[in-house]
Amino acid sequence: MENSTPKKNLTIKEGDAVLLCFEDEKSYLIEVTRGKRASIHCGRPILVDDWIGQPFGKKVVCEHGSGYLLKPTLEDLMMKASRESGIIYPKDAAFLIMKAGITNGSRVIEVGTGSGSLTMALAQTVAPNGHVYTYDRRTDLPKNAHKNVARAGLNDFVTFKQRQVSDPFDETGVDAIILDIPQPWEEVASVKRALRGGGRVVSLNPTFNQIEKMAEELRANGFILVESRELLEREILARGGKTRPVQRMIGHTEFMLFAVCPLDPTQA
Amino acid sequence: MENSTPKKNLTIKEGDAVLLCFEDEKSYLIEVTRGKRASIHCGRPILVDDWIGQPFGKKVVCEHGSGYLLKPTLEDLMMKASRESGIIYPKDAAFLIMKAGITNGSRVIEVGTGSGSLTMALAQTVAPNGHVYTYDRRTDLPKNAHKNVARAGLNDFVTFKQRQVSDPFDETGVDAIILDIPQPWEEVASVKRALRGGGRVVSLNPTFNQIEKMAEELRANGFILVESRELLEREILARGGKTRPVQRMIGHTEFMLFAVCPLDPTQA
Amino acid sequence: MENSTPKKNLTIKEGDAVLLCFEDEKSYLIEVTRGKRASIHCGRPILVDDWIGQPFGKKVVCEHGSGYLLKPTLEDLMMKASRESGIIYPKDAAFLIMKAGITNGSRVIEVGTGSGSLTMALAQTVAPNGHVYTYDRRTDLPKNAHKNVARAGLNDFVTFKQRQVSDPFDETGVDAIILDIPQPWEEVASVKRALRGGGRVVSLNPTFNQIEKMAEELRANGFILVESRELLEREILARGGKTRPVQRMIGHTEFMLFAVCPLDPTQA
Amino acid sequence: MENSTPKKNLTIKEGDAVLLCFEDEKSYLIEVTRGKRASIHCGRPILVDDWIGQPFGKKVVCEHGSGYLLKPTLEDLMMKASRESGIIYPKDAAFLIMKAGITNGSRVIEVGTGSGSLTMALAQTVAPNGHVYTYDRRTDLPKNAHKNVARAGLNDFVTFKQRQVSDPFDETGVDAIILDIPQPWEEVASVKRALRGGGRVVSLNPTFNQIEKMAEELRANGFILVESRELLEREILARGGKTRPVQRMIGHTEFMLFAVCPLDPTQA
Repeated sequence: MENSTPKKNLTIKEGDAVLLCFEDEKSYLIEVTRGKRASIHCGRPILVDDWIGQPFGKKVVCEHGSGYLLKPTLEDLMMKASRESGIIYPKDAAFLIMKAGITNGSRVIEVGTGSGSLTMALAQTVAPNGHVYTYDRRTDLPKNAHKNVARAGLNDFVTFKQRQVSDPFDETGVDAIILDIPQPWEEVASVKRALRGGGRVVSLNPTFNQIEKMAEELRANGFILVESRELLEREILARGGKTRPVQRMIGHTEFMLFAVCPLDPTQA
Repeated sequence: MENSTPKKNLTIKEGDAVLLCFEDEKSYLIEVTRGKRASIHCGRPILVDDWIGQPFGKKVVCEHGSGYLLKPTLEDLMMKASRESGIIYPKDAAFLIMKAGITNGSRVIEVGTGSGSLTMALAQTVAPNGHVYTYDRRTDLPKNAHKNVARAGLNDFVTFKQRQVSDPFDETGVDAIILDIPQPWEEVASVKRALRGGGRVVSLNPTFNQIEKMAEELRANGFILVESRELLEREILARGGKTRPVQRMIGHTEFMLFAVCPLDPTQA
Repeated sequence: MENSTPKKNLTIKEGDAVLLCFEDEKSYLIEVTRGKRASIHCGRPILVDDWIGQPFGKKVVCEHGSGYLLKPTLEDLMMKASRESGIIYPKDAAFLIMKAGITNGSRVIEVGTGSGSLTMALAQTVAPNGHVYTYDRRTDLPKNAHKNVARAGLNDFVTFKQRQVSDPFDETGVDAIILDIPQPWEEVASVKRALRGGGRVVSLNPTFNQIEKMAEELRANGFILVESRELLEREILARGGKTRPVQRMIGHTEFMLFAVCPLDPTQA
Repeated sequence: MENSTPKKNLTIKEGDAVLLCFEDEKSYLIEVTRGKRASIHCGRPILVDDWIGQPFGKKVVCEHGSGYLLKPTLEDLMMKASRESGIIYPKDAAFLIMKAGITNGSRVIEVGTGSGSLTMALAQTVAPNGHVYTYDRRTDLPKNAHKNVARAGLNDFVTFKQRQVSDPFDETGVDAIILDIPQPWEEVASVKRALRGGGRVVSLNPTFNQIEKMAEELRANGFILVESRELLEREILARGGKTRPVQRMIGHTEFMLFAVCPLDPTQA
C-alpha cells in the first residue's frame, strides 16, 4: 500500500540544497537562501530567489552557458562537501552502509567526524527514525562538518560530540559503529561496550597494516565474521560506435573492514 | 535531536527474518514462524520458537556446530533471496541507489521485478515514507519476488504490477526509475513521461552493446548527464603477518547506466 | 651449458642508450654519442663522453642532484620513446608478446608502426634470429619510429615498409601479425595469407566496438581460439608500517584480441 | 637486414612440444616422441608419429572430436607445466621479465626453482646468448622442473643448482635475480654480491607483509628504485551484439617487487 501523494514535479523550497549542473559538466552545490547570489564560472552571479517555487529539472540560462537545477544526490552532497580533511568516497559509503546493515531507524556511532561527508550519508540513511552520534577528538569541531550536515537538511538526525580516544561512548546498544581514524584498534573495547548484540563495526583505513592490526584486535576481542573489502569504480564512456572504459581511474581509496559483535555472554 | 529510544539489545520477534550464521561461515536466512523447524547442515532441524524473545547476537549451539542469530543486512537478504533468475549484486544495488539519489520518501519505479532482490533494496531505502512500484511483463508474477519482499518485512512499501513493454506506467512524477531488462531502449519514452523533472533513470545491463544503445537512446530523447560505471569488489584476507587479496573474484556483474531527465519544457 | 663469459659489471659503450635516473625519480634516456651534452633539470648539461667505459650502475653527481647510469629496460625504451602518436604500454606489449608465442627467431609483421614503441618490444624479443617487418600507411614514415628503433640498437632486426590497407604483405609464413590500427577487420584477408599455419594474430584497440567487429571478422574467416583480454596494472607503495596501493591508476589502455590461423586446408 | 629464410609453414619435428587444442577448448601439451600414444578425452589414444613432418596449424580428427596441432606459446608451456607446487602466472612472468630488463644475452639467477614454469619463461627470453642459473634449497630437485624445461627444449640455457639460504651464489655480475621464496629478505646480501652494477632484483610474494619487509630490507641495503606492482587480467567475451567481460576472474596471484642495485662504490 502506498503512503505518499503523487506529484508531477518536485518544487524547490527556500533552504533546499540545489545542484546547479552546467552543460559543460561544471556543477555547484548551492543553498537556496533569499538574497544569495551564486557565483558561477560562466557569467555574473545568479540571484537564487528566482529558483524558489520552480520545479527541479528546470533549465536555467546564464550569461555564457546554461544548466539545470537538480536535487542533489548523496554523491553530490558528499563530493561537494566543504572540506579540510580527506573525504569518504560515495562508492565506499554506499557499500559500507549496506554491508553494515544500516537502515532507517538504525542508531549509529561514527568515530572521526572529519568533513561530515560520511556523517551525511549515515544520517540520510537512518532518517527519519534513527540517529547518528558522531564523535571527534577535537574540542572545536570542524565548522565544515556542521555546515555540510546543515546544508543537507540533516541536522535533526545528527548529534556532534567530542571525546578522547578510548573513552566510553555515551550510547549503548547501538546498531553499528563506523571508525574513520588512523588507529582504530585503540577503540575496540569502547566499541564492544557500545554495540548491541549482533551489532556491526566498520573500520576505514588506507593501509594494509591498519586493517591487519584492527582485524587481529577485533578477533582477539571476540568479534566474528571479520572481513575486509576494497571497491574499484571505473567509468565507461558509452557512446555510439565507440564505447570504452575511461583512461584514468582511482586506484585506491580505502580498505573497509567489517565485523560483528556477538551478544555479551552475560546477557545470553 | 534524537528520536529513538536507546536499548541495550535488539530482540527477535515472531515474523522476523534471522540470519543463522555458523562458525564455518555457512549461513541460513530463516523466517521466525512458530512451529518451524529449520534444516541445517550440522545437526537435526532446529525449532525456531526458542529464538523468539532472544536478543540478536546470541550464540546457539546445534548438534555438531554453533552459530549466531543475526539481524540480516540488506546484503544477506539479497544474496539469500530465493531465485529463479539472476540476482543483482549488493555492491551494485547500494551504488546505484546512492547515485540515483534514492532515499527515504522517494517514489521509485522498477522495471523487471525478477527475484525481487533489487526490489528489497529499493524498498528498504525508500521506507518509511516512499514507495516502490515494480513492474514485470509476466502475468503470473514470480512467487519468489513476493516471498522475498514479504520475508524482508517490506510488503507495505512495494506494489507489484504487470505491464507490457512500452505501455505507460500508472505513476507520474516519480523520483527514479530502475530498468533491469534486456532491451531498455524500448522503454525510454514511457520512462520520460513517468519521471519528474530532474528525476533519474538507471539501467542495468551485462553487455557493452546494451549500455551503448541505451545511452544513445537516452541522449536522443533529451536526457542529460548520461554516464556509465562498473564496480569491482575484491576481498582482502586481513590476518596477522599474512594479509593478501583473495585469489578469486567476480570479474563482472553488470554495467550501470545513469541519466537525468530535464524538466519537460512545457512545464518550465 | 652456459655460453656467455661472466663479467663483474657491464660497461657503457659509445652508441649505447643509457637511462640517467635521478634520485627524485626524474629520468632521461640518452644516447651516448661523443660530444653530446645532455640537458637535465638539476644543473648544467652533462658531457656524456665521461660515461664511455664506465660501468652501468655508476652514480653521477650533477650540479643540484645525483643519479645513476642504468641500462634501459624495454619499459624505459617504450615509455621514453619520442612520439607523435599514442604509445603502447609496456604491460600490454609484454603480455601480447608472450600470449602470441613471439620469441627469438620469430618472423613478425606489425601493422601500424606509430612511434615504434611496440616495434622495439617486438624487435628485442625476436633478436637475434628473427625479424620484424613493420608496415605503415604513410609514405613518409614517422621519423620518430626510425629514431626510437635506432636508439635501442635494434636496426638490424627491423624493416620499415609502406603499404596501403588490404594490400598483400611481402612476407608469407610469418609466425605472428600484430595490428595496431583503427579498422583491423579490413586486414583479415591479407593477414590470413601472410600467416603460417598455426600463426597468431593480435589486434590492439581501445573500444569494445572494434574488438567485437574484429573478433567476428576473424571467426567468419576461419580463425580459431579467438579471445580478448585487458590488463590493469596497479602500483603498491611498499613501505614499513604503511603499505597501500597508490591513489591513481590507469583505467584503460587497450583491449587485446588474439586468434590463431589454422593451416590452409589446401596445404593439409 | 633480415637474417632468416622465409618459409610457408613450420614443420613439426621429433622432440617438439605440440599443443593439441580441441575445438571444445580442451588442450594437451604433448612431446612428440616416436611410439608415443597421447591420451585424449574424446577418443582412443593418438599415435603421435603421424604428426612428425606435418605443419603446425594442421587439423586432426579424433574419434569424437577434432583439434589443431599448435606450437605452444610460453603461456601454454607455463600453464601446462607438470607441477608439485604453485605456478607463476604468464601475465606476471611476462611483465616482470620486461620490467627487469631481461632479454637475449641476459645472465639471470632464479631463486626457488619450483615447477620450473618461471625458469622456462626466463630461459626462453635469454636464449640464445644468455643463461639461467636456477637455485633451490632442496637436494633432490623437483623432477618436474627438469622435465618441464626439457620438454620446452630449453636445457641448453638452464643450469639447476642446489644451495642453502644466504649462501653465496656461484655467479657474479649477473643482470638480474628473481626470487620466488617466502622470506626473500634473507637473501639480500647474497643478491647484492651477485648482481652487476645496475643489475635488477625481482621478488614475487603473495602477501603485503612480505613485499613490505623485502622493500625495507632492500632500501636498507642501498638498493634504489624500489617499487611494487600487481597486475589484474580480465577476459572479455567479444561476440557480435553481446560483448562483455567474463563473470569470473583471478583476484590475486602475486605482488611483484622490483629494485636496482647501484654500482658497488668501491668499483666506482
